[in-house]
Amino acid sequence: EVTWDAAAAEKGGYATFMEKEIHDQPHAVRDTLIGRFDAEGRLALDELHIPEDELRAVTKIVIVACGTAAYAGMVAKYAIERWTRIPVEVELAHEFRYRDPVIDQHTLVVSISQSGETMDTLMAVRHAKELGARTVSICNTHGSTIPRESDAVLYTHAGPEIAVASTKAFLGQITASYILGLYLASLRAGVTGVEPDVEGILAEMQAIPAKIEQLLGQMDRVKEIASYMADSRSVLFLGRHVGYPVAMEGALKLKELAYIHAEGFAAGELKHGPIALIEPGQPVFVIVPSPDSEHGLHGKVVSNIQEIRARGARTLVIAEEGDEDVVPFADVVIRVPRTPALLAPLLTVVPLQVFALHLSTAKGLDVDQPRNLAKSVTVE
Amino acid sequence: EVTWDAAAAEKGGYATFMEKEIHDQPHAVRDTLIGRFDAEGRLALDELHIPEDELRAVTKIVIVACGTAAYAGMVAKYAIERWTRIPVEVELAHEFRYRDPVIDQHTLVVSISQSGETMDTLMAVRHAKELGARTVSICNTHGSTIPRESDAVLYTHAGPEIAVASTKAFLGQITASYILGLYLASLRAGVTGVEPDVEGILAEMQAIPAKIEQLLGQMDRVKEIASYMADSRSVLFLGRHVGYPVAMEGALKLKELAYIHAEGFAAGELKHGPIALIEPGQPVFVIVPSPDSEHGLHGKVVSNIQEIRARGARTLVIAEEGDEDVVPFADVVIRVPRTPALLAPLLTVVPLQVFALHLSTAKGLDVDQPRNLAKSVTVE
Repeated sequence: EVTWDAAAAEKGGYATFMEKEIHDQPHAVRDTLIGRFDAEGRLALDELHIPEDELRAVTKIVIVACGTAAYAGMVAKYAIERWTRIPVEVELAHEFRYRDPVIDQHTLVVSISQSGETMDTLMAVRHAKELGARTVSICNTHGSTIPRESDAVLYTHAGPEIAVASTKAFLGQITASYILGLYLASLRAGVTGVEPDVEGILAEMQAIPAKIEQLLGQMDRVKEIASYMADSRSVLFLGRHVGYPVAMEGALKLKELAYIHAEGFAAGELKHGPIALIEPGQPVFVIVPSPDSEHGLHGKVVSNIQEIRARGARTLVIAEEGDEDVVPFADVVIRVPRTPALLAPLLTVVPLQVFALHLSTAKGLDVDQPRNLAKSVTVE
Repeated sequence: EVTWDAAAAEKGGYATFMEKEIHDQPHAVRDTLIGRFDAEGRLALDELHIPEDELRAVTKIVIVACGTAAYAGMVAKYAIERWTRIPVEVELAHEFRYRDPVIDQHTLVVSISQSGETMDTLMAVRHAKELGARTVSICNTHGSTIPRESDAVLYTHAGPEIAVASTKAFLGQITASYILGLYLASLRAGVTGVEPDVEGILAEMQAIPAKIEQLLGQMDRVKEIASYMADSRSVLFLGRHVGYPVAMEGALKLKELAYIHAEGFAAGELKHGPIALIEPGQPVFVIVPSPDSEHGLHGKVVSNIQEIRARGARTLVIAEEGDEDVVPFADVVIRVPRTPALLAPLLTVVPLQVFALHLSTAKGLDVDQPRNLAKSVTVE
């Protein structure tokens, strides 16, 4: 039995575990980065039974996960493909198991699970091993089943996550996946002729915790909006590129915590159907890529905001500091610190977590224990 | 100017183009199948500039599409991987273009577009060609831009689709993708040692039009339910395996036509978040796999129905004739004729189309011209 005082202490002075865990996120990223590379720049996997030459021979990466962890995988796909030039597929673990995946000994199957006990993900890992794949586990719980059964483990050092809705584990998972991507890129530099600036990227990753800290210090407006929006019937989320899985994660948080119909879309899909939902007053969060993004992505998303605003949407825009292009079309602008495009999800998801937390609180719901949900899904 | 009489004639006696096009679906499938294979069982592509040995050397297939066509691609992924043992990725065309995809001359990029003018898909095809890929277009419009710019074309013979929300083109796209999959499987039989029973599968496909006809004859209950549900605020859709993209297509139809917040999920995701949305009275469509499905998938989906019903969901269950296991947990059972698991989407989507059509009609909306949407998205 944990007494009320003990529970309050565990929450570090916050009202809920989720709020505490949102504020743990700078540590989750920092601790997941610490001590990962040795003097020669080689990754220190926590447990590794895969020889370097096997990793060099990998021709395909499949990330298997469920829920929030699958969105972390979708973010990682963009970065790992870019850095390694190895094709990456992301699969829901429960779909992967049952569809006769094409897998061989040159496939690296990366599972992502906070608890390390997610039954669907565990079964996917076992299936991948039977098919001859090498398996890496990204996991937050030492000694749990999935890491034990995998060929290698990269632990996220996010600390225990108690709230059912995942926050800091998500940031830890993205961080760990990126470390794995950079490591594979270094190993394969000779093969691909493409070598990302690993040191430069790592330096930018080291700068992320302070940026999250700064961002958490400027969430008052987000909290205020969340309380105003407590009776929203639906909220939409749009993003492109790495902002697309962030949009889906923002929607999932709102479903889980506030029982609101929320859906995340790839912004490019808007005209292919979902724009029919836009009517006056419909709240839409838009995750805007940096104005420095390649391929003019920033301008395309600004156009999307303009289109939905013209149809009456209430636009809640997450944009980089200094991005003035969004201002004319935004009902609310939520600023995030400047950072390279591939690292932006570590920042842009934070206001969406805070929004879901405070909207749920405003509705008087149990933030840490949403209805119908368990922390780890250890059954099928 | 088309006069009212001429328009009525074009609608073949139906109130809307969409209703007509739903009833065209047996023809769409039949006409897309006709004359595709020569005496030696080789596929007759409408235009083909890819030598057989290049097709035999394909190591990866990437399907690029948007909206409904992307869901057709997701259905096709399950079948093509199964039959060819070539890994298939499905990518939203607007995401594909901007993420530095890993593509080479052994990649076959299959684009799916009803109009052949979808700008995002066209740009994805051009990008794939620049990267050296071979390109196949699955398209419903002769002489349009995407087929003209592709190395090969497989036309869907669905006839002109006028309603903005796609129906018969979707069935044509699945059919054409399956033909392509069977053809590649035959070509590669020597490589993989796996040869599907192409004749048997084609025979089952030939039987589909009559089954759609039968299904269309028993839609009265679906129409009735749709009118009862005209004031629904949200509807959820669950499916697994090939039923997962069908769930998403069912949700998209409802968004497009009835402006209702509708979302499709992989049934396995339920416990990882979306189940929080289930409350008394929440309508949920569930697409149930055949009781003959492999890996016990049928039982798993029946468990999902039981779980959501226990939390008060109103369950609308699409199940095969003779599947009695679903009856205890279904508020409504919608029957579809028995068919092999991979072909089921050609049937299970039909009641979802009819549902969206009649719910939209009951709301007094313009079924053929939903707000904010254009038939072909020829801009970015």
